[in-house]
Amino acid sequence: MSASIQKLVVVGVGLIGASFSLALKSAGRVRRVVGVGRTRANLEQALAMGAIDEVAEDARLAADGADFILVATPVGAMGDAFGRIATKLGEHAVVTDAGSTKQSVIATARAALGARIAQFVPGHPIAGSDESGAAAATASLYRDRELILTPLPENSPEAVACVRTAWQACGARVTEMCATEHDAVLAAVSHLPHLVSYALVHELAGRADAAQLFAHAGSGLRDVTRLAASHPEMWRDICVANREALLGELRRYQDALAQLGAALEQTDGAELERIFTAARAARRAWTARNGG
Amino acid sequence: MSASIQKLVVVGVGLIGASFSLALKSAGRVRRVVGVGRTRANLEQALAMGAIDEVAEDARLAADGADFILVATPVGAMGDAFGRIATKLGEHAVVTDAGSTKQSVIATARAALGARIAQFVPGHPIAGSDESGAAAATASLYRDRELILTPLPENSPEAVACVRTAWQACGARVTEMCATEHDAVLAAVSHLPHLVSYALVHELAGRADAAQLFAHAGSGLRDVTRLAASHPEMWRDICVANREALLGELRRYQDALAQLGAALEQTDGAELERIFTAARAARRAWTARNGG
Repeated sequence: MSASIQKLVVVGVGLIGASFSLALKSAGRVRRVVGVGRTRANLEQALAMGAIDEVAEDARLAADGADFILVATPVGAMGDAFGRIATKLGEHAVVTDAGSTKQSVIATARAALGARIAQFVPGHPIAGSDESGAAAATASLYRDRELILTPLPENSPEAVACVRTAWQACGARVTEMCATEHDAVLAAVSHLPHLVSYALVHELAGRADAAQLFAHAGSGLRDVTRLAASHPEMWRDICVANREALLGELRRYQDALAQLGAALEQTDGAELERIFTAARAARRAWTARNGG
Repeated sequence: MSASIQKLVVVGVGLIGASFSLALKSAGRVRRVVGVGRTRANLEQALAMGAIDEVAEDARLAADGADFILVATPVGAMGDAFGRIATKLGEHAVVTDAGSTKQSVIATARAALGARIAQFVPGHPIAGSDESGAAAATASLYRDRELILTPLPENSPEAVACVRTAWQACGARVTEMCATEHDAVLAAVSHLPHLVSYALVHELAGRADAAQLFAHAGSGLRDVTRLAASHPEMWRDICVANREALLGELRRYQDALAQLGAALEQTDGAELERIFTAARAARRAWTARNGG
């Protein structure tokens, strides 16, 4: 295929899918975009914004004649999407996804695509927001953000390059790692933080004095809990798909909390200060490396 | 005293103390500000910014002739500050503090001020940042933020009004509650979130693959961990001072995490989605009430 995409199909036209399309359009890298989704109002929104040019009722029909397909549904819905695509997938078409877990998505894709698996290049943009839906999409969502590819042994260099080029055109920094490593890293730095944040809001919101508590909360609680405004179905699927790695991370985090709890129980101010100092230094070093 | 402060003493010229002074100066409500602190470089910075007009070597000397004294040190250092002030405190002077815990500060003030306790009106601005020191101070830090007063039975209405008026001049919304209630509420919505955030960074930073993990982290981890960049000594003191309430909050949070862990262990997607949905609704309702 050429450097430009003639027919892009986006299955799941939410924040991620619609932003991909807007970014490619903004870069002049796509001719026509067909959107497939469950919610008519959201698809109408995507049409009105120019994120997609037309709506297809079914991914099966949309896939026909497509040269590039992005599956950007919640990971739990990807099996169905791959299954529909499979029947109409042209031999030169390239398929990628935007799922936050990779091993589960790859297994699903293998089952659905069969011999066509070489055409599927798994990917994950480290971008997003607690906003969801096409209405929140922007052409700049991926600018200077990381896009992780976890290529399969079956992928041709051309297929990988095609997906890489598309994401680079969106402004993303493309890196590669294996799917196992991806899932382990993301369990620690993304999936666990979502659980941490959801648990905090859930605990506070369930109390009789919740209104009183939230009335006196400031920017600290707001930041810690931003991730708790994330899409429940999407995060349910991610947690289930990356269950084992996430359980391991959760246990480590529970141990870290217990360590703080023990220091507090013993009124061990020196230990608390030691932990707080180490944490502050680590966070400051990280944000300094990433431009503050 | 008149509506304007003739001599303001700020003991602890950090983000909180220097911002108070800058706000009052900006409002034209203070004639002269004397700063007392431990770190010469920070005091020089406060002088250079115009947050203070002069430096006093000791709170004892500074208190002489002051009509308004703000103690804005870490709460663990307040006993010493009150003790120094006590010997030179004029009979019409008003003292307040900016400590994040109130019962411990009040006990400390009672011990140090003795019969002068009626002149101490305890307060806590719900404002701050992970930045610290005078360099981070701004005249607008308290604008539209809550300032909680926890007046003592001994306080005269005039003393309370004086402190209330000063904070209102800084742009703060002043509310009142009892110290016990303050400490319980803040343990839940501020002190616990700091532990949650410190524990997460500490856990990740202590691992052999920490560099790899942070390299692939995005804005989600950044938000959840912002509080972990907070001042270690200040937060050590707060945790110790509000130990009992905070231990209770930590246990509740550990239970909430365990509930998520159990759902994940059982691959109970419906339960995960139920909790995530409830949390998202609660957080969105809260931020909507507070202007998004």
